Amino acid sequence: MSQSAARKRRGGGRAGNAARRGGAVIEQMPWNPPLNIDRPIEPLSEEGVMAIHEGAMEILEDIGIAILNPEALEIFREAGCRIDGELVRCGREFIMEMVGKAPDSFTLTPRNPERRITVGGNTLLFGNVSSPPNYWDMEIGRKVPGTREMCRNLLKLTQYFNCIHFAGGYPVEPVDIHASVRHLDVVHDKLVLTDKVMHAYSLGKERVEDVMEMVRIAGGLSHEEFDATPRMYTNINSTSPLKHDYPMLDGWMRLARRGQGLVVTPFTLAGAMAPVTMAGAVAQSLAEGLIAIALAQYIRPGCPCVIGTFTSNVDMKSGAPAFGTPEYMRATQMTGQLARFYKLPMRSSGVCAANVPDGQAMWETSNSLWAAVQSGSNMVYHAAGWLEGGLIASPEKFIMDCEILQQIQRYMDPSLTATGPDEIALDAIRAVGNDGHFFGIQHTQDRYSTAFYQPFLSDWKNYEGWEAAGAIWTPERAHHLFKEIVGSFEAPPMEDAIRDELADFVARRKAEGGAPTDF
Amino acid sequence: MSQSAARKRRGGGRAGNAARRGGAVIEQMPWNPPLNIDRPIEPLSEEGVMAIHEGAMEILEDIGIAILNPEALEIFREAGCRIDGELVRCGREFIMEMVGKAPDSFTLTPRNPERRITVGGNTLLFGNVSSPPNYWDMEIGRKVPGTREMCRNLLKLTQYFNCIHFAGGYPVEPVDIHASVRHLDVVHDKLVLTDKVMHAYSLGKERVEDVMEMVRIAGGLSHEEFDATPRMYTNINSTSPLKHDYPMLDGWMRLARRGQGLVVTPFTLAGAMAPVTMAGAVAQSLAEGLIAIALAQYIRPGCPCVIGTFTSNVDMKSGAPAFGTPEYMRATQMTGQLARFYKLPMRSSGVCAANVPDGQAMWETSNSLWAAVQSGSNMVYHAAGWLEGGLIASPEKFIMDCEILQQIQRYMDPSLTATGPDEIALDAIRAVGNDGHFFGIQHTQDRYSTAFYQPFLSDWKNYEGWEAAGAIWTPERAHHLFKEIVGSFEAPPMEDAIRDELADFVARRKAEGGAPTDF
Repeated sequence: MSQSAARKRRGGGRAGNAARRGGAVIEQMPWNPPLNIDRPIEPLSEEGVMAIHEGAMEILEDIGIAILNPEALEIFREAGCRIDGELVRCGREFIMEMVGKAPDSFTLTPRNPERRITVGGNTLLFGNVSSPPNYWDMEIGRKVPGTREMCRNLLKLTQYFNCIHFAGGYPVEPVDIHASVRHLDVVHDKLVLTDKVMHAYSLGKERVEDVMEMVRIAGGLSHEEFDATPRMYTNINSTSPLKHDYPMLDGWMRLARRGQGLVVTPFTLAGAMAPVTMAGAVAQSLAEGLIAIALAQYIRPGCPCVIGTFTSNVDMKSGAPAFGTPEYMRATQMTGQLARFYKLPMRSSGVCAANVPDGQAMWETSNSLWAAVQSGSNMVYHAAGWLEGGLIASPEKFIMDCEILQQIQRYMDPSLTATGPDEIALDAIRAVGNDGHFFGIQHTQDRYSTAFYQPFLSDWKNYEGWEAAGAIWTPERAHHLFKEIVGSFEAPPMEDAIRDELADFVARRKAEGGAPTDF
Repeated sequence: MSQSAARKRRGGGRAGNAARRGGAVIEQMPWNPPLNIDRPIEPLSEEGVMAIHEGAMEILEDIGIAILNPEALEIFREAGCRIDGELVRCGREFIMEMVGKAPDSFTLTPRNPERRITVGGNTLLFGNVSSPPNYWDMEIGRKVPGTREMCRNLLKLTQYFNCIHFAGGYPVEPVDIHASVRHLDVVHDKLVLTDKVMHAYSLGKERVEDVMEMVRIAGGLSHEEFDATPRMYTNINSTSPLKHDYPMLDGWMRLARRGQGLVVTPFTLAGAMAPVTMAGAVAQSLAEGLIAIALAQYIRPGCPCVIGTFTSNVDMKSGAPAFGTPEYMRATQMTGQLARFYKLPMRSSGVCAANVPDGQAMWETSNSLWAAVQSGSNMVYHAAGWLEGGLIASPEKFIMDCEILQQIQRYMDPSLTATGPDEIALDAIRAVGNDGHFFGIQHTQDRYSTAFYQPFLSDWKNYEGWEAAGAIWTPERAHHLFKEIVGSFEAPPMEDAIRDELADFVARRKAEGGAPTDF
């Protein structure tokens, strides 16, 4: 807290290049979560959709899912599912009835209501990289364990970029903070440094309850106000194949009871934790996701749920996970078709296997981001900053990804494909004829500043101009921006009373010992 | 010729790493031009399509296009179009009648008939970078004028990679060869080093006639056989706005008369040579393309024509062209909708503004390649090797792009989204249950080697493995492959008699002085 406040005071005046540019490090697009206006890519026929649905239902009815949480087991028993030890088998009528109670769209309202987001329909929302244990930047030049300072810097990027619409998990795991109190410090930093939608890890009741309480405090909300509408969300992963573990389900049920956002994302690597065939991996992933959603809907009908996909393939030579592959793209698109079949909002990711922010990182990330778009995903996790299959967070990659995200946001602007008389522009074409150019004419001048996407990182100079400016490759340019953005960062406003209450809560919970670390 | 033959003999045995890998530098996908199985992205409503069509028709009817070729002017006059000096205005009935004669699909058959390609329908074909005056590679480390050796090396890549389906123009302009005989040397190199579909620049009758004759000789064809089916193609660019120049139309008409492939690609940069509004730029581009296609169809009804798009935007700050932008993507998709409306095969490109093969190069190229896919393009020019808005050719970029092209090819494999019982794989899921993994089971073993795309350039090792292997970033890896591929290249077989006849033709035409250079 004191560290953050001191930094804020110290950094109050913007310095260096930022000042010379009139107060902003870059000219970025405004906060304006895009709507996906493209028809999704749908590789499956209706029969294909039904075959995968049928597969998921047979998994749930006949094969069963292990539920390693006694409370959840009891709920499934009460609901009439077949329980055999920890194995739960659910009839499709139950599953479909429960899934039918989930809303097809809902809002998440963070402490700054202007950052409210709608999840569902054709909204397309991007979140920061979440949970890498390690960090890499151009200055360090190697992979190192994450620290609180690195985490804070990535949170500043999360806040700074308008194309990041929600704050995912920790952008890097700060292993210099003891695990028992890590959630207190990082969620504190997240709430102070950003005003975007918050996430809680479902890693034990203390952590989940602490985060809910801190989000409530930061929003200046009563308990009733917190419960009245979704203010935050959790994301749980099944333990594929066919298993949900204790703490994830515990957090899931806690947030369900309080009507908060619920995202379930099985991590089904085809050939490892799921069948080597993509349709089988998707069917298994759906089964694992749907049973969690059914549980939440039984507990609190109508609570906001999102079905996630993290279906990719492994390198069959090494067993290493691969990301942004053709198989990954198709699995994401197929999941999108099934998510629409179930009328559930969907989550996917921006991912890569590359270890550094180079060409490979960008083609893998582009493939995965376009697959997110093509699948009709509503929430795109890890959309900025991810390397090495999620084991490394990188600020340069974060900033490079934001350049792509802004372009996707601009791509979804319907004005690009408007076809009214002003856009067909026959008068302009007639005026220029076959012996002039369009630079100086009124039709161009009137649209000069808004006609085209303006990148903040792409360098459009010719080679000679680029060389004269230092011949700087993309990651180096991103690194310079990273230093400038972090150096001149200003945290969003927070009332002193709330700031104090948050600090008091953190101090009290630390004094109590935080959360157990033996899970 | 002697240089080429000597190199071929010298390089007969594969060396170094290639030999250790059993004869091939990389394991690449086989020659198998993909079919685009995705529904195109269609940003325009039916009304939008009609508005752009109406705009193109009004340009052709009312504004007119300058035709700087007396022979073509005479043909338009004969066809009943309104001629005013060099300005031609064509009624929409004439345009649509002529365009209706163009086939919606055709084949191009190179000297190796196994490399025949079909242009139209849902074929998706990739060609190498064409026409940059300059070259950049990691070893030279700066931009330098192209040479014959650089051109030959890029032709070797063109031949080597099975995901390159046709040979475009010169992959780099070899400015060390005098312009009068450059076409003879480079087309000779192209015909000897590759067996894929050839291109002729429409830059004067001598060049066009020489290339047609060389392609005929290389194919071992009589003149009648050459004329019987398309063996090669040309690509012409209008001189936007609203103008076609003399030599381009001359070559266009020569190939039309002999029934060869015809691609017309206006270079309409919105805000410079076309309206700042994308719909206007597309309408103008279509008008410029359709008049050339009408000309060809009037000369030889049914001759194979392709409508190309090169509509992008400029950087409004500098006037520099931008590529792979959101506006570029939408213009390409809109053109695709209109190409389907006119029932014409379509050409687009793989492009970027980046100066080096870095992250920016890859997100711009990915955007443009996915736009090509989404638009339903049949021919994708510059799909490998382009930098600096087409002013630089780079072998590293070529190889990096081929990694993306292979992934697109794999993405189009319908087996990825198959949903039969073997793919849903309930038996495998049941067998593994909730306490195992899929690595060792029979269902995985049976599909081990073909289940997933195997990259040749992406490095899927974890960070530590990647670091131990030298911590090599993507362009350096591509550079190593470039050296290996070129070092162990074997030209495709060519009969000695044909080789001699080609050499004789080149020698004779050089003795005659080649082609004039005063255009």
